[in-house]
Parts: sequence; structure tokens; C-alpha cells
Amino acid sequence: MPLQTPLLAKAANQARGLAIDAVHACSSGHLGLPLGAAEIGAVLYGHALVHNPEHPRWLNRDRFVLSAGHGSMFLYAWLHLSGYDIPLDEVKKFRALHSITPGHPEFRETPGVEATTGPLGQGVGNAVGMAVAGQMAAARFNTPEHTVFDYHVVCLAGDGCMQEGVAMEAVAFAGHQKLDNLILIYDSNDVTLDAMAVKTQSENAAARFKAIGWDVQTIDGHDMAVFLKAFNKAKKATSGKPQLIIAKTQIARGIPEVAGTAKGHGEGGAKFADSARAGLGLPADQHFFVSDDVRAYFADHLKRLLRHYKKWEKTFEAWRTANPDKAALLDSAKNAPNASALLAKIPAFPADAKLATRAAGRDVLQPVAAELPLLIGGSADLYGSTLNLIAADKDFDPSNRGGRNIRFGIREHGMAAIANGIAYDGLFRPSVATFLVFADYSRPPMRLAALSDLPVVYIYTHDSIGVGEDGPTHQPVETVSALRVIPNMDVIRPADPEETAGAFAAALERTDGPTLLALTRQALPMLNDIPVQTRREGVLKGGYVAKQETAALTHILIATGSELQIALAAAKTLGAGVRVVSLPSFQRFDQQSPEYRESVLPASCRKRVAVEAGVPDLWYKYVGLEGKVVGIARFGLSAPGPVVFKELGITAEAVVAAAQSL
Amino acid sequence: MPLQTPLLAKAANQARGLAIDAVHACSSGHLGLPLGAAEIGAVLYGHALVHNPEHPRWLNRDRFVLSAGHGSMFLYAWLHLSGYDIPLDEVKKFRALHSITPGHPEFRETPGVEATTGPLGQGVGNAVGMAVAGQMAAARFNTPEHTVFDYHVVCLAGDGCMQEGVAMEAVAFAGHQKLDNLILIYDSNDVTLDAMAVKTQSENAAARFKAIGWDVQTIDGHDMAVFLKAFNKAKKATSGKPQLIIAKTQIARGIPEVAGTAKGHGEGGAKFADSARAGLGLPADQHFFVSDDVRAYFADHLKRLLRHYKKWEKTFEAWRTANPDKAALLDSAKNAPNASALLAKIPAFPADAKLATRAAGRDVLQPVAAELPLLIGGSADLYGSTLNLIAADKDFDPSNRGGRNIRFGIREHGMAAIANGIAYDGLFRPSVATFLVFADYSRPPMRLAALSDLPVVYIYTHDSIGVGEDGPTHQPVETVSALRVIPNMDVIRPADPEETAGAFAAALERTDGPTLLALTRQALPMLNDIPVQTRREGVLKGGYVAKQETAALTHILIATGSELQIALAAAKTLGAGVRVVSLPSFQRFDQQSPEYRESVLPASCRKRVAVEAGVPDLWYKYVGLEGKVVGIARFGLSAPGPVVFKELGITAEAVVAAAQSL
Repeated sequence: MPLQTPLLAKAANQARGLAIDAVHACSSGHLGLPLGAAEIGAVLYGHALVHNPEHPRWLNRDRFVLSAGHGSMFLYAWLHLSGYDIPLDEVKKFRALHSITPGHPEFRETPGVEATTGPLGQGVGNAVGMAVAGQMAAARFNTPEHTVFDYHVVCLAGDGCMQEGVAMEAVAFAGHQKLDNLILIYDSNDVTLDAMAVKTQSENAAARFKAIGWDVQTIDGHDMAVFLKAFNKAKKATSGKPQLIIAKTQIARGIPEVAGTAKGHGEGGAKFADSARAGLGLPADQHFFVSDDVRAYFADHLKRLLRHYKKWEKTFEAWRTANPDKAALLDSAKNAPNASALLAKIPAFPADAKLATRAAGRDVLQPVAAELPLLIGGSADLYGSTLNLIAADKDFDPSNRGGRNIRFGIREHGMAAIANGIAYDGLFRPSVATFLVFADYSRPPMRLAALSDLPVVYIYTHDSIGVGEDGPTHQPVETVSALRVIPNMDVIRPADPEETAGAFAAALERTDGPTLLALTRQALPMLNDIPVQTRREGVLKGGYVAKQETAALTHILIATGSELQIALAAAKTLGAGVRVVSLPSFQRFDQQSPEYRESVLPASCRKRVAVEAGVPDLWYKYVGLEGKVVGIARFGLSAPGPVVFKELGITAEAVVAAAQSL
Repeated sequence: MPLQTPLLAKAANQARGLAIDAVHACSSGHLGLPLGAAEIGAVLYGHALVHNPEHPRWLNRDRFVLSAGHGSMFLYAWLHLSGYDIPLDEVKKFRALHSITPGHPEFRETPGVEATTGPLGQGVGNAVGMAVAGQMAAARFNTPEHTVFDYHVVCLAGDGCMQEGVAMEAVAFAGHQKLDNLILIYDSNDVTLDAMAVKTQSENAAARFKAIGWDVQTIDGHDMAVFLKAFNKAKKATSGKPQLIIAKTQIARGIPEVAGTAKGHGEGGAKFADSARAGLGLPADQHFFVSDDVRAYFADHLKRLLRHYKKWEKTFEAWRTANPDKAALLDSAKNAPNASALLAKIPAFPADAKLATRAAGRDVLQPVAAELPLLIGGSADLYGSTLNLIAADKDFDPSNRGGRNIRFGIREHGMAAIANGIAYDGLFRPSVATFLVFADYSRPPMRLAALSDLPVVYIYTHDSIGVGEDGPTHQPVETVSALRVIPNMDVIRPADPEETAGAFAAALERTDGPTLLALTRQALPMLNDIPVQTRREGVLKGGYVAKQETAALTHILIATGSELQIALAAAKTLGAGVRVVSLPSFQRFDQQSPEYRESVLPASCRKRVAVEAGVPDLWYKYVGLEGKVVGIARFGLSAPGPVVFKELGITAEAVVAAAQSL
């Protein structure tokens, strides 16, 4: 069908009206993008996007990511008009408590919202991740006879997103990886929140993107026919490159008093709502107005979309019948792995093994990856150190879209944002790796993974001063604690190879949020005094009794990771009344029943010492004001690992002394 | 003097030998860059850099930043040869405990090391900050008669640095700001740690930099004459643009077995030390070898440098005499501001004021900025929200290098790395601003500021669920706690305008590390029941008794920021035996004497309730196992701020209930 320009222009103005009325009603929010990109929205949702509002998670839908998440009313208006289950009443409750129209788009809260966005640049990374997932899905599931995956990922980003390093990392990766199923629309309105963009940027964006391997078109973002032409050209491009459309727009178009200026960015224009509404041809007495012809148009368009969907469904069913193995693989994406079943596939380590938990992770990963074919991994140029290569598989690259190992480059922030995109998509299970100290580089998307319940696994190694000679820049001392305080982030720091097996199983059985595995650089002994089963399953509970006292309980020593061996050694000196608790995951332990927690850490015993090669502060939660923490309240040191441990006092002697001082 | 190519080629090979021997001796470290960039080092340190090894902090030295900090032996070798106070014995103790040659360069540990580097990309941001400082210094201090500042900032970065988002943000800023005193040398060796760089990058770096406003030269990094020509051209460029030199090099040149491959990156080549040494013309029996002619050359070169320095010193003295005001301003950089003196300049707020602590910060900043003319500020496109504009001054931009307000764009990571650069330089006192939740974006350089004792001030606003409608993506709940665990990071969350005055004074009197000010979006009442002086000076101590009990002590309520009013309200309900403690800074409080801490939080009182609109975990350090925390163990909600406070239970009623349950 040809583009219905007059009708869609009307729809664009009514979408503007919805944004103005919603922002006016709650006196907050951002008008700039919903008004400036209204024609783009009209073309995408009224014509060009292939999706199914009645089945928002349809496998082969075009994904649309609003990276400039502050323009959330853009999404809510167009999703509402398109027929997603977002009643007008919810649009009216924009930014109100428990509405499905929160201030920034939140994944799982609103049908049709593909990603939680708002922190700038993240959505660009998410879109790159979805494009990766799309390429992976096509490679695995399409056959010469049946194409079940051929969707595009469309991302709308503003100047703010484009200035962010995370977006720059992600687009560099996309250019290198030739993700030609990705269309990035740059809402280029020359305005940022504070001022005209000329105050902070002067780059030639088209030249920059061409230099990193993208095709670029620059167009008038208010001319719907021109935009559609560019969009279709991008969709059909055969260059093998990702596609950038620089859409020159006027921010807040529709409110002449603020349009084209920084004042148009936020809610400032709402005070001109009445005159703006009149200028847009909207009735003065009817807020949140949608005309009957616009409703009718979108109802018809929905029918067209459903017809397309039905056609795909037929192909899909034929594909299922013809390819039962592939269909089973696809279906397996829905099944959460069972930790016990995974553990059964992981051979026990030799009792005389002595290896770093990162090396144990490598050994654990191989049978787990065999069991979970949709598990994929990646590393930020550190495979040789993080050891998380899926050895039986190849790299994901333009010549091998079926590969399960992604070389992200030295782009930790982009890597984690891309992993979120893969997780939002939901078909593949992403795991990514770098040095633990660089968790700081990837922290913004890690927070969003926790907020959005994304089951991303972070295999972050070199987890303490055990890093040694690389020194304080590379020795995490506060990093583990700083990650533990992120709600819904499960941080697991296993103490030996068997606990590492438990940690991987715990991470992979999780479906409602991310898990970080903090693994050592240095070799650790097997803690054979604890039964294998106890070590493995103890991790699933977050904490467990690693050494039971053999006399009346006098002290409890608590440790994680490489310090559990120190606590066990100290216990031998301290005597029979000492219990040692392994506490690899605070989050998991805190979720156990009060009875279980009491059985591990009885309230009656207050002579408690925690030992961890990190900052002590968070540990008082478990040792209280009467207890002591043997920790490191400073940055580390450059010297061989064992020397640093000694120099900073993380020793069995220090634990003994602390316990005896209580 | 013409370039002494044969001698410097010899020096380059001996520098290679120092790196090989040092890495071999400790069996760790990175050979790739010291060997691959040896000719670059020879030209810079043996000929081109204007510096003074006998006075490493000379004001007008060229700054050299090794962004690829893992190549630290590059620095140590050339600094040693140049005559810095780095004896050969220290080079031999590379990466050993308490040597001045740690695994990665650490500021303050080693003369001639301008910045702590290693986390990739940071040094590029630091160099941009130093270039900003250079422009600012020239604008303020040079006169038509006397040029005292005309140094260049030279940064050496590898592929890893160039892939990092922080570097991309910084170079975009540098291009926009036309920092033509900045020379970035890209050690382009086509290799990263894991693999050949072609596996992860395929950009046209020259085109990318041209697109963002840089001049670019591409040269052979092993041809010393060619490199010097490019370097001189960059120094003399009149385009007004920052200068990129893409130096094509062979990684690990000198060890044929690994040169030009990923194996050359780390310490792997050290096992070929003997044959490499022979190939480089180094004696087999003498490790850490430097020939007499090379020593003699550098001794002569040092004399040339000292002559140049003496000339400058004469100019400087003449300038001092002619410009006593400017000289006094320059000298003032050395004086740490006194908190009491600063507080005396800040008028008391009206007792009936009701304003957000960010707005109080705006009011506090103005007299403080008047008092401290070398204090500069910036915001990541949020001046309208962070309110930290120095109102009496203008923007720093290419047409006004004297401006004190820096518009960083939406580049939080770059901003904080640039702030570190300004702080390393040491003349100006940097403060930067964004929303607190985006501290995660700038966390890597914040960590480095703490590690390197840099007195950067972070004015981060919108500090809790009080953000309201913007929702959980914009509401920090874990952020304050996650920052508190960084060693040497002082986090201050003031409770009202007077505590805000104290917080600014505390931040600015600090010279040995960074301070973060967590300020509210929402208006807060004046807490007039506490004397103004108590509120202001209480902050300097980190914590103080905000309300003394008037009967035998039964409970202690502890709060920070916007929740202090809640604790005070709860105390009224709970009765006369209740004490309220304001604890705006854990770090400062923990540094007080045991007596003072006991006077505020007497050990005998264990009925303690902490209240803070954030995750509770860290608070057990003060309330112990018997106490309670009224906090938020989840992400926030999109709704008006007061609604969110109520919905998430941060209320006086909840505090009362918690206290009564003890």
C-alpha cells in the first residue's frame, strides 16, 4: 500500500497531542522527541514496521528500541495507536504510580517496549545486541526452504545517545561485525538538554559513521515520503553494512514557542498546550484526542499486520514440521535450565587439582555449553585470561553467524549493553567476560540488567589483590561489595573448583536477573574436607556450613572465594568450637528461610570474624558490631599476589588474632 | 640540534633491553608497547619533549601520558635514561613490593609519571584534561610580554585505548574544543591482547578523527626522522585542531619470535630474552645494560633541557615581577582552602527557606567560586538541573579559554577522566556534575581519582527516589552505598541547605582525594532546630548529634540527606530518650577519634535505627545485628517523589515502628 501521507500527518499531530496532554497532566516528562519525531513515528508504526500488536513478543517482529528513552511518550502514543494493550486511560496516567506508562520505558511493564531505556546510549547497545541475536537466529534456524527469522532492528537515538561512549563502542562493533539488519535513526535536532548542540559537538556524524563501516543517509525527518524511502533503502541495502539514517528534525515541533530550542526538550512547552493543540488541529475541549479516521486507519493497518503475521505463522508451522530438531532447539529457549541437572553434567574435579577458579570456570563451561546450545559467550579482548571460550565452537563473525564466541574488543561498556540486547531478545543466553575491576566500565548496563530482570551472566575474573603485579589499578578491592549492593544482582564468589561448578549452575538456572561470577586469577587448592556435593549445592543457597564445629560453638568464621581456605586454616588453630561458613553469594543467602539462615549463622553466636580480600564495610551485616572483619580498607599494591596478601594482612594469622580478640 | 639517529637507535634498543630484562626478572608485565614504541620513546625523551628531569613538576613542561599503561616499562626505561630520580635498581625491581616501578604507572609513586594509567582509555581523557588546563593557564597567566605557559600534552595510546568509549568521548570533546595543544600518538600495531586487531576493529581511524575535528598524520613509527617530522608538524600546526599521529608500529619489535603478533603483547616474549638481546646488540652477560655513549648522550641532552628551563625561569621571574596579581593567583594553587574560612564567606540561609540541596549548592557555590578563582566547574549537559554554573563567569570554549564553566556534553565518563587530567595537572581545582545515578557512567575515573588522591569534586544531584516521575532508571537507590565503598572517596549527602554549605567546604578543603556531593532534586525544609554552626561543622566531622536526647538514652536514629527530617519527626513521636544522629559522610566520621565516635554513637545503646532512601546493607556497620534499617532493598518507581517515598516506606511512621520493635 502506498504511504497514506495526509492521514498519517494527522496521526502525527494527534500523537503530538497525546504527548502534550500527557506531559501537561503530570507536569513532567519530555516533549522534544515525541513532537520532533512524530512523522518518523507515523511512518514506522503506521506503515513500515513489521510487528504484531496482538502478539508483542512475536519471534520475527521488527524490534524497535527508543534509545532516547526520555521521549517515552513517543512510544506510548504510537504503541497505543497501533493497538498494543495500552488503553488510553494508561496514557492518561503517564508517570503515575503503577501505570504501565512510566517516566522512562521499562521492559516487562508495557507491551511493545523492547528495552528499558533512559540512561543515554544504552538503547543503541541494546539494538546492536538484538541485531546480533537476529543474525544468530537466522543462521541457526532458517533453512533454504523456510525463512523464519528476517526481522530488522530499528533504533531511534538522539544527540545525547550519540555522544555517549557506550553507543560509540556499540556502533564500532556493529560496523566491524557488519550487522546489516540494524537501522539506526539519528533524531538529529541540533539541541541537547542544556543548550544548542553546537555548544558541545561539532563532528561530521555522517563521515564518522562511514569511517566505521556504516552506510549513511541524511534526510529531512519531517518529510514522511522521504523518510520512508530512506528506511526502505536501508532495509534493502545489500552492502552488508549497518544503516544510519540521519533525520534532521525540529525538536518540539508543534509548539512554536519552544520548537527548535533547548526549551523544547523537556516539559517546558506544556504551558503552551492550548495554543499548540489549536495549531495542530486538535479540538480545544477534548484532551488525549484521537480522531475516528486515525483510529480506523490503524485498525486497518493492524489487519494488514495480522495478515502478514498469519502468513509467517504458516511458514513457521511448515518449518516446525520439516525441522523438528531445530524446532526443539527453538523451544528450548523457554526452558530454564535446572541446576541439579547441569551439575550432573559437570564432572567432579580431581581431589588433587590446584587451579584458579577462572580455570575451573573454563572446565565447567564446556559441558554446560554442550548442554545449553543457546548459551553464547563473549570477552572484551581477554579470552586468554578470562578463559571463557566455548572451545567446541567458533567465533561469531560476518562469515560465521552461527559462532557462539563473540570478540567484543576492548569495549566493556558496549559489551554489557549488547549482552542486554541479546537478553531482551530472549532467544539466546548471553555471558560476557572481562577483568572484575573493569566491572566499573560495564556497570550502567549491569544495573539495567538487574532492573529489567535480564539473566545475563558476567564471568569476571582476576577478582582480588590475587591479581598481583598488575597493581591497584587492576586489583578489585571494593568492586565485589559495590556490585553486591545492586538490587537483584546475584554476585557469586566461589572458593574452589567445586564451588565454581555450583556457581555456574546457579547463574544459569536463574531467569529473573543477572549473576556475576567473581573468579580468581590465582590457583586455589581443592577444599576436600568439604564434600563435593556440599560445595556445589551450598553455593545454590548462597551460604552454608563449610566446617561444622565439633565442640560447643564459640566462634564463626565467614569467608568467600580465595579466603575460604584462610578461614579453614584459621579454624584449625582456633579449636574445636569454631565453625566456618562459606558465603559465596549474599543475595542467595539472604533469600533463604529464616530457619536456614539461623542454622548457618545462629543468632546466639556473636563472636564472628569475616575474612575477604576486599573492603570490610558490607560485612557488618553478618558480623555485627561485636564481630570483626579481616579485610582491606585501602587500594592494593603491585607485587606478586602472595606478597600482597601478606602485606595487606589477609592471612590465617590475622583471622586467628581477630577471633581471639573477641 | 639535528636528530642523532644512530645514537638514539641504540638507545631505543637498550630501552628494549631494559624492558625485556625487567619483564624477564619478574616473569610478568607487557613487552609489546615498550618494544614496539621504542623509536617513539627515543625521539620523545631523547630529543623532542620539553621537560626537566630534575624538576619533574615544572609548570611549563610538556606533559606525557602513557594511556596504554600496561606498557609501563616504556615509561620507566625512558624516565630512567632521561635522568629522573629512578635509579637502575628500581628498574630492576619492576613490579616488586614498594618499588617505584609498579606494574602500571602510578601517579605520585614515580617522578615523571603524570597519571595513573592502565584501565584503558583513561589516559586519553587525562591528556585532554591536561590540555584544557594548559589552555586555561595560558589564558590566565600569559601576557603580551611574557609567555609562561606554552606546553604541549602528548599522549601515547594503543588500539585498546582507542576502542574504549571514554577515549572516544574525550577525543570528541577535544575536537569540539579545538585543543590544539594536544598531540595524541596512536601506537597502531594492529594487535590487541587476544588476537590481531582485525578480529575486533575495522574502522578507518584517520577518517574518524578527521570527522571529529582533528588533524591526522599517518607515519611509520619506527622511522625516527619521519616521526620527529610529524611530531614537529603537529606542534607547529596552526589549524587550531588537536593533532593525531597514527604511528604504524610492529608490536614487540626486537623479539622476532613474537613480534607483530598477539603473543608479543604480554610477557610471553621474555623467554626469548637471550636471543633477543643478541639481536638488539646487547651484551649477553650484562642485563639492564646501558652503554656509556647512550648515558653520555642523555647527560648532554639533560644539559640542553636545563638550559631551556633556565631561560624559562628567567622569563618566569620577569613575569612574576611584572604581574604580582597573576603571580599571587598562581601561587594560590598551592594553598588548600580552609573550611572555616570558606564557611565564613557563605551567608546563612533564611530560616524559612525551603529548597533542594542542589539549589542550596548553587547558592553556596557562588561565594565559594569568588573566593577560589582557580576552581572550575562543568556539567554533562545538565547545568539546568545540577545548578552548578559559576554564574559570574562564562563558558570555557575556543573563543574564551578563561571561562570557568565547561560544557562537557552528554559524556559523563569522558568528563570525569578529563577532570582527573585537570587534577593531575594540579593548577586548577575541577568540579563536575551530572545526575547521581549516572555516577556509574563515570565510575572508572572516579576510582582512579580516589586511588591517585586527586581532589576532584563531584556535584551529583537527584540523589534518591525523590527524583520521582523519571522512575527507576533515574533513581539512585544503590549508588550512594556503591560509592561509599570506594577507598578514599568521601561521599557527603547533606540534609539541608546549611549542611550543604558544610559539604562544599569539606569537599574544597580536601587535597588528598575526591569528594562526591549527593544533592537532592526535591526541596527540603531548613532543619532549624539544629544550630547553623552545628549543621555546617557537623558535616566536616562526617556525623554529629543532630538532636540530643533529653532523658536517659533509649534509641539512636541515624539518617543522611533528605531522610534526616524523617528521623527528626520520628524522634518527636518516640519520646525524650531518643537521639538523632546526622551522618552525612561515613568516611569522615570513621576518621574521627574513637572518643568522638563514641560520643555520637555510644556503644551502650544498641537500639539503633538507620533511615536512608537507599539500599540498607551498608548501614549494619552502624546499627549492628540488633538494629534496624529503614531502607529500600529494590529499585524505585515512576511516580511523583512524595508518592514514591510513601509507597516504598521511607516515612517517619516506618522509623517509629522499627524503633518500637527493638
